[in-house]
Amino acid sequence: MSSWPVSSDTARRALAGARGAGRSGPDVLDTWARVAWNLLTEPGDGPAGALIAECGAAQALEIAVRGLPAPAHLSADVDRGRERWMPRWRPEGIAEACAAAARAGVHLIVPGDPSWPAPVDDLGSHRPVVLWVRGSDELLRPAGGAVALVGARAATGYGEHVAGELAADLAGSGTTVVSGAAYGIDGAAHRAALSVGGTTLAFLAGGADRPYPAGHSQLIDRIATSGAVISEAPCGAAPTKWRFLQRNRLIAAISDATVVVEAGWRSGSLNTAGHAASLGRPLGAVPGPITSTASAGCHRLMRDYDARCITSADDVRELLGWEDGTLLPAVNGNRTDRTTRVMDALSVRAERDLTQIARSCGLAPAEVEAELGILALSGGVERGRSGWRRVASWKR
Amino acid sequence: MSSWPVSSDTARRALAGARGAGRSGPDVLDTWARVAWNLLTEPGDGPAGALIAECGAAQALEIAVRGLPAPAHLSADVDRGRERWMPRWRPEGIAEACAAAARAGVHLIVPGDPSWPAPVDDLGSHRPVVLWVRGSDELLRPAGGAVALVGARAATGYGEHVAGELAADLAGSGTTVVSGAAYGIDGAAHRAALSVGGTTLAFLAGGADRPYPAGHSQLIDRIATSGAVISEAPCGAAPTKWRFLQRNRLIAAISDATVVVEAGWRSGSLNTAGHAASLGRPLGAVPGPITSTASAGCHRLMRDYDARCITSADDVRELLGWEDGTLLPAVNGNRTDRTTRVMDALSVRAERDLTQIARSCGLAPAEVEAELGILALSGGVERGRSGWRRVASWKR
Repeated sequence: MSSWPVSSDTARRALAGARGAGRSGPDVLDTWARVAWNLLTEPGDGPAGALIAECGAAQALEIAVRGLPAPAHLSADVDRGRERWMPRWRPEGIAEACAAAARAGVHLIVPGDPSWPAPVDDLGSHRPVVLWVRGSDELLRPAGGAVALVGARAATGYGEHVAGELAADLAGSGTTVVSGAAYGIDGAAHRAALSVGGTTLAFLAGGADRPYPAGHSQLIDRIATSGAVISEAPCGAAPTKWRFLQRNRLIAAISDATVVVEAGWRSGSLNTAGHAASLGRPLGAVPGPITSTASAGCHRLMRDYDARCITSADDVRELLGWEDGTLLPAVNGNRTDRTTRVMDALSVRAERDLTQIARSCGLAPAEVEAELGILALSGGVERGRSGWRRVASWKR
Repeated sequence: MSSWPVSSDTARRALAGARGAGRSGPDVLDTWARVAWNLLTEPGDGPAGALIAECGAAQALEIAVRGLPAPAHLSADVDRGRERWMPRWRPEGIAEACAAAARAGVHLIVPGDPSWPAPVDDLGSHRPVVLWVRGSDELLRPAGGAVALVGARAATGYGEHVAGELAADLAGSGTTVVSGAAYGIDGAAHRAALSVGGTTLAFLAGGADRPYPAGHSQLIDRIATSGAVISEAPCGAAPTKWRFLQRNRLIAAISDATVVVEAGWRSGSLNTAGHAASLGRPLGAVPGPITSTASAGCHRLMRDYDARCITSADDVRELLGWEDGTLLPAVNGNRTDRTTRVMDALSVRAERDLTQIARSCGLAPAEVEAELGILALSGGVERGRSGWRRVASWKR
């Protein structure tokens, strides 16, 4: 790896505020180059994504900036790409973006980080080059599954009620509720998840330091405190129309299923649904009165996109394939937290018995036992002769 | 054909009141035997239907009553059948049933009659042996298609409103609205169809002379006046639970599609939907608020039976495969009447030109031309060198 255009030390210093001290992870120059790409491109830039996937972020950057030849099958796309990328090229922007993030309490995660959400990799060359997170980035790999609850800003009382009921039930039983922090359905879903002490993630179109809409600043702050507020755009970025549409693809990609609660005929949430469908993620829609224009988009999804008709949280679990809750028993409190605590109490090498683990993580033995059972099913832990151990290769 | 147990003359006299004078149709002894079967059996008696299909109604009756051997593959069923049929055997009952029908203005139609609704033959051995009709039996072969609009008696204002809107739109554009004359959704559908001067058919569980429910007596009278009230059960028969369930199969069978407008989780209208599905008829359901138990059955149909989500009359037409209304342009007045009048004005042999036809049937030349176009598409008429003629083999 050449140290073009900066040395590892310079790169490390540039990233420091946003990456935290002593944070392990991929190569520092790769991370630095990813931030560079993040500043050069708009979200979902396919040619950039393809070039990075092929050559790695650092070499891809060198190809783009220094005009080195790109792999033949990408070269035409890269030539066109340079025209939009190069006007934005300012190497000093990387340190500035990370410093801005550090000031706002936003940190940076990149592919290869333990908390990088693997499902977004399904976006292929359209996957984000980095993610900026305000809150706990560990929550981006939810052990209890994640469901997107999205819908119209111009929601009715009915829609907000239903969004709240679904979110409270799902979040209360350990499923992460993902949404976009907008007025209407999104807000109702986040609020209900918070109200039951569940986990909720908000994806923003602009920078993670820019609560949008402004009227949801407090809500977004609360989400950042117990959950996470995520953006693909660097701090300070405005929530443009394009970034909204691309934000929607992240909501769909990170979630195991997407449910549209209420949506007009041309609601933006249908775009999220479209992403979910094209990613092969299960799609649901909540019906409503056919006399309500706020449900017209949901009915359209059922008719034209085979969205499942969702009438309860159980229907959502069925959509996820957890029909009887076998894999996901209702638990009190935050499933993700419990998983983390149990995993923290385990060793990859030494086997530990239930009493030791319970004492170590401060949970009741029965809770630990339930959690170990679930983790065993998903391959996270193994039972040995004298107790349990953690499986090194398992990633949440 | 033997004349057991009555002569053709006796049979003709027995049937006279219910068949009308000079009515053409199938063999009189066959018709007489069908009425006998109608009195011996409850609706949907499969072994009786299979025996009649195999041997004809008259010989089947002789096999049943005189204990002659049945075809080998039916013989066990027929032996068991005799035990339920024979206690009811009263040959004089046939003339009595027909006289009662005549008094109530109810007439009898049988397979082979020009107005026999061919789609019910899809019921196979469960097809009705006869139908008793109060009103115009020609309407049982609707040129403009037929849609069943059914649903809960315990409907909400929303459900009745939607049933009314769908029925008015469909009936107003020439589609026959079929339902069961019950309170709630059924009543709203019939009333709306009548209000736009459209055609509506009501299938009753009890005799066609017994308006049920009593509170809908006036409505049922109005349906009989401009449409038809149909029952499989002879006059005087009580509307038993079994007959309701079997009545539902007729609604589903005669209709090109069935739409459930509102239905509780265990509503009887789901039974109609089940018949439609098992007959391979398109099935639709109108969504409603998931907070309304009156829509729970509809949502169940969408989830578990792949019912299409219906939000408008256009959705119903799409369900019928008439997406652009190509085959079924919106027309003023009653399509069926217009078809009848144009067909009446045509000859099977002589070609007639547009002016002659229009003058003869008393419709505007433009209306006649439109009707001829539709009839030509369905094979009912042919254009020759000097005008139009009727196709002898075509059945509406």
